[in-house]
Amino acid sequence: MARIASEDDFLALMDAHFPRTGDGIVLGRGDDAAILACPQRLCVTTDLFVEDVHFRRRYFPPGAVGAKALAVNLSDVAAMGGVPAGFVLGLVCPDDADRGYWDALLAGMAGLAARHNVPLVGGDLSKGDKIALSVTVWGAPGPSGRFLTRATGAAGDMLVAVGDLGLARVGLAVLEKDGPEAAAHWPAAVAAHLSPVPRLEAGLALAAIPGVSSCMDVSDGLARDLPRLLPPGCGADLFFTPASLHPEVTAHAVAHGRPPEKVAFFGGEDYALIATVPPAALPALRVALPGAIAIGRLTPKPGYTLNGAPINERGFDHFG
Amino acid sequence: MARIASEDDFLALMDAHFPRTGDGIVLGRGDDAAILACPQRLCVTTDLFVEDVHFRRRYFPPGAVGAKALAVNLSDVAAMGGVPAGFVLGLVCPDDADRGYWDALLAGMAGLAARHNVPLVGGDLSKGDKIALSVTVWGAPGPSGRFLTRATGAAGDMLVAVGDLGLARVGLAVLEKDGPEAAAHWPAAVAAHLSPVPRLEAGLALAAIPGVSSCMDVSDGLARDLPRLLPPGCGADLFFTPASLHPEVTAHAVAHGRPPEKVAFFGGEDYALIATVPPAALPALRVALPGAIAIGRLTPKPGYTLNGAPINERGFDHFG
Repeated sequence: MARIASEDDFLALMDAHFPRTGDGIVLGRGDDAAILACPQRLCVTTDLFVEDVHFRRRYFPPGAVGAKALAVNLSDVAAMGGVPAGFVLGLVCPDDADRGYWDALLAGMAGLAARHNVPLVGGDLSKGDKIALSVTVWGAPGPSGRFLTRATGAAGDMLVAVGDLGLARVGLAVLEKDGPEAAAHWPAAVAAHLSPVPRLEAGLALAAIPGVSSCMDVSDGLARDLPRLLPPGCGADLFFTPASLHPEVTAHAVAHGRPPEKVAFFGGEDYALIATVPPAALPALRVALPGAIAIGRLTPKPGYTLNGAPINERGFDHFG
Repeated sequence: MARIASEDDFLALMDAHFPRTGDGIVLGRGDDAAILACPQRLCVTTDLFVEDVHFRRRYFPPGAVGAKALAVNLSDVAAMGGVPAGFVLGLVCPDDADRGYWDALLAGMAGLAARHNVPLVGGDLSKGDKIALSVTVWGAPGPSGRFLTRATGAAGDMLVAVGDLGLARVGLAVLEKDGPEAAAHWPAAVAAHLSPVPRLEAGLALAAIPGVSSCMDVSDGLARDLPRLLPPGCGADLFFTPASLHPEVTAHAVAHGRPPEKVAFFGGEDYALIATVPPAALPALRVALPGAIAIGRLTPKPGYTLNGAPINERGFDHFG
């Protein structure tokens, strides 16, 4: 097993995968801090990605670990309607991962970074018992000049989603049960869990539609995240038809005797975008984002209904 | 033992310690990303602080853990000659730390943040086996308008230090040996390890002196960090007199039969600033920073001498 011999060795591995320069980077990696040329406003977000909490080495290819740690952060920039402009990486490295592992992990992350033209401008390394990645990403506004925020919609707005709700949760369930073999029967669900797609183009398109009144990305499942999107005092009537659910969500739900719409509602790690839009702006949204699906409507009173029935249950909590 | 009951409970604890608003914060914590109003340039840096790698709970008060995780990042902004403008925090929280522990940790961090007027604008929480903190800080240029960088000095420049070299390393040694009791005999060394002071005022003063040609903070010890400060092809002649060393460094070195200047040279976690300055600018520096100590001079050839003798040894490496 080839070991990382020194910190300089690891930094050379970073340099092999990540260019040192990029748009807006006055001074890249290697000094006490990087120097950025900034627009008037930036958005900034940070997310952790921790072994045996967010991923298991048993069924997570190292390239997917690296890519997902970045993707979940890019998803937050997408939810702001922003264009990611750079990121920094904190990496906790246990002894039991070899040079080939890190090479693959960094290659996966670098591939996603290159696809979205996001430079890595700094980082820190530490030993530790388990792999952990901390990514901080910042982004500029898109051509619309605005960032999208939460809690700025209004009763009567439609609720739309870009991305499959519940699919990644099905992927987690089948991977935990069957390991990598699960991909043979549940390819879309496994891909949704291992390799979520940050919806950056969709976020930009949403920000460009003046009527869109709020937006967020669904990371903890719709059940937990929807209350964070809605303005104070509002609730929502949600409706999922078979056509608005991925076939693997429906198939897994049916196989386990659960209503498919509840699988979509509780979900988790969907990294779909949800947005609110007044009905008058819906035609423009349908043109700009043909893949967006209407999943509900904001009501002037707190509380939720799901396909007509009241629903009160809570989703995932790290400390619950 | 009071437990953290939920993620919302933890977030409420954050809100109790950290204000949600601050200079330059358009939108603070609670959305997918924060929104910053930016100057034309920002510097950005990130550092990890991991249990049993960077600190031990056995002798590290929780407030010192929180403060040091932020301080080591502020030290990087100080080394750039910048003014810290905001930070984000990733926090890995094991089950065996209770609410009182987190309350004290966050209070320590918040105290330091308040002292330097640096708002916490975002974060992420995760379970994990050991405490780990990931902090990303950004900063604006000071009144001089410039950031200080590494490798921009020249042969003939004097090398100056602000802060005690070797003192924190002595603190680590005595804490590892005697635990918290060590503070009775080695108060300054223990304080230097537990509660390093980010030299922000000194960094600003250095940036304001036009002659100052480069600067960095010493985190891995002078032996490892000095090669990172020097321009390609340069070396340095270093000299430490008894007057330029802290008495506890000298006393500990003598007690262990080591040359005091070598304790200062290898050091580690000093968070002192070192800077290069042409001799002509030294008088201005002495006026602006009376506490700065001349510790050497840049030579036109690679290699180091310490008090007249060549020295080749290497310092600390996470992967060595």
